[in-house]
Amino acid sequence: MIKRIAIIGTGLIGASIGLALRRAGFPGEILGIDRSELERTAALDIHAIDRFIEADPNELKQLDAIILSVPVLGVLDWMQRLAPHLHAGQLITDVGSTKLAITRAAAALFPPGADAPTFLPGHPMAGKESGGAALADATLFEGATWLFTPGSPATSALETEWRTWVTRFGAHPLDMDAARHDKLCAWVSHLPQMVSTAMAALFEDEFGDAEEIAAVGGRALREMTRLGASPYSMWRDVALTNTDAVAATLFALEQRLAHIRENLKTPELRDEFAKANHFRAKR
Amino acid sequence: MIKRIAIIGTGLIGASIGLALRRAGFPGEILGIDRSELERTAALDIHAIDRFIEADPNELKQLDAIILSVPVLGVLDWMQRLAPHLHAGQLITDVGSTKLAITRAAAALFPPGADAPTFLPGHPMAGKESGGAALADATLFEGATWLFTPGSPATSALETEWRTWVTRFGAHPLDMDAARHDKLCAWVSHLPQMVSTAMAALFEDEFGDAEEIAAVGGRALREMTRLGASPYSMWRDVALTNTDAVAATLFALEQRLAHIRENLKTPELRDEFAKANHFRAKR
Repeated sequence: MIKRIAIIGTGLIGASIGLALRRAGFPGEILGIDRSELERTAALDIHAIDRFIEADPNELKQLDAIILSVPVLGVLDWMQRLAPHLHAGQLITDVGSTKLAITRAAAALFPPGADAPTFLPGHPMAGKESGGAALADATLFEGATWLFTPGSPATSALETEWRTWVTRFGAHPLDMDAARHDKLCAWVSHLPQMVSTAMAALFEDEFGDAEEIAAVGGRALREMTRLGASPYSMWRDVALTNTDAVAATLFALEQRLAHIRENLKTPELRDEFAKANHFRAKR
Repeated sequence: MIKRIAIIGTGLIGASIGLALRRAGFPGEILGIDRSELERTAALDIHAIDRFIEADPNELKQLDAIILSVPVLGVLDWMQRLAPHLHAGQLITDVGSTKLAITRAAAALFPPGADAPTFLPGHPMAGKESGGAALADATLFEGATWLFTPGSPATSALETEWRTWVTRFGAHPLDMDAARHDKLCAWVSHLPQMVSTAMAALFEDEFGDAEEIAAVGGRALREMTRLGASPYSMWRDVALTNTDAVAATLFALEQRLAHIRENLKTPELRDEFAKANHFRAKR
């Protein structure tokens, strides 16, 4: 049973998990580890975290569960750093946006066996275009899919309990192969992000501070560039660990836009609209 | 003074103008012309239109103002059709999404002079991804910019009065050169539409009816493909009358996406995010 949990990285997602645990009635202790004093203060202020600790071996061995809630390369670093100090009967899970690198590292660092902790790769499909504990929200995961890419089918009691908490957050757990996860997320998450960033950057170059753009631009512009507010720090690791899949989706969209551009006056444009209408009719 | 107004095309925008006029206290008669019985019934049901008329010369000559609320090629057709039957002391305005073709046609068909009606090219920056009078809304124009691209600086009393009604709808009138209008709208409206259509069509081809996409796709996917629901019938005329400007924005975005694709692992990606962040910080 999970009595003592540590959330490593108490930004938007980490602090929201703390709040969601409390809201769902988690009776144990919620500890935090974060190198930013600003984030630590914000997480304590909103009662997402009971107290912060240092990641020393004595503290670590007393934990039942550890949630790695940092960008993907940070997750990989923490896995390396934690591995020597953890033991069987502990659960580690993460919320990284790409899963293949993490799932592979977990197989190497925490091979299934009697003396190893359980590592459960996870990814809640929730977030905001800005980060930080100040934006944390106990209801952030309500209705969201929470993906898991377990490396082996064996499940421990702690893993089962964590899945139950996720369900209590209002999220829907869904298991998937890690490679499939990264491909799907390239399409539904990483591509939209890169397109929104590209459009906002293009507008910045084209119009700079021109006031006309604010007057003329409506909902379409705001919506299509909203994700452009996302910081590089949140996306660098996605680009580095899912490069090929993201590049493939970008290339596919470039070709699609060229096709539309070459067919603005032909019936091919009608076919594109019909396909798009069909896709949206199912949403 | 505008006492009798006719709205030609009583779909989403036309019927919303009828409702907005009534809401703003317009005391005169609001007539409608629409070839679709379905739209006529819907517009009457919501009291956007008092009664429908046929476009015969006797009816037309008694109108003070005519609002052409049909797609751009329809506006151009109606201008040709109406020209022989109108006279000085009448105002014609439109809501077409592109303005250069319409403004040029107005200069030829309604040259400023003692015996000509006033033609005021207009374009409210408001709409929805679906059309039809059933979705009409008296508050559709609240807070929206209402662009005008007058061909000549001379303003008639009727034109001034129409601008006042537009202000009473809660919209902000803004005058602009027609060529500049079409270029700006290619960026802020037509490009976002084509990108959203391209993305939705791409997803349709890639995933079809796969259920995973619905489970995994979140706000980013929904938002970036929302405009994909827009029908071809609403956009064909934009593509036909603003082809070069739209093609230029599509080509620019294709290049931008290729740049991001080639730099997923380099600091260039950081620069793109920084530019995008800067653009969004002003919204």
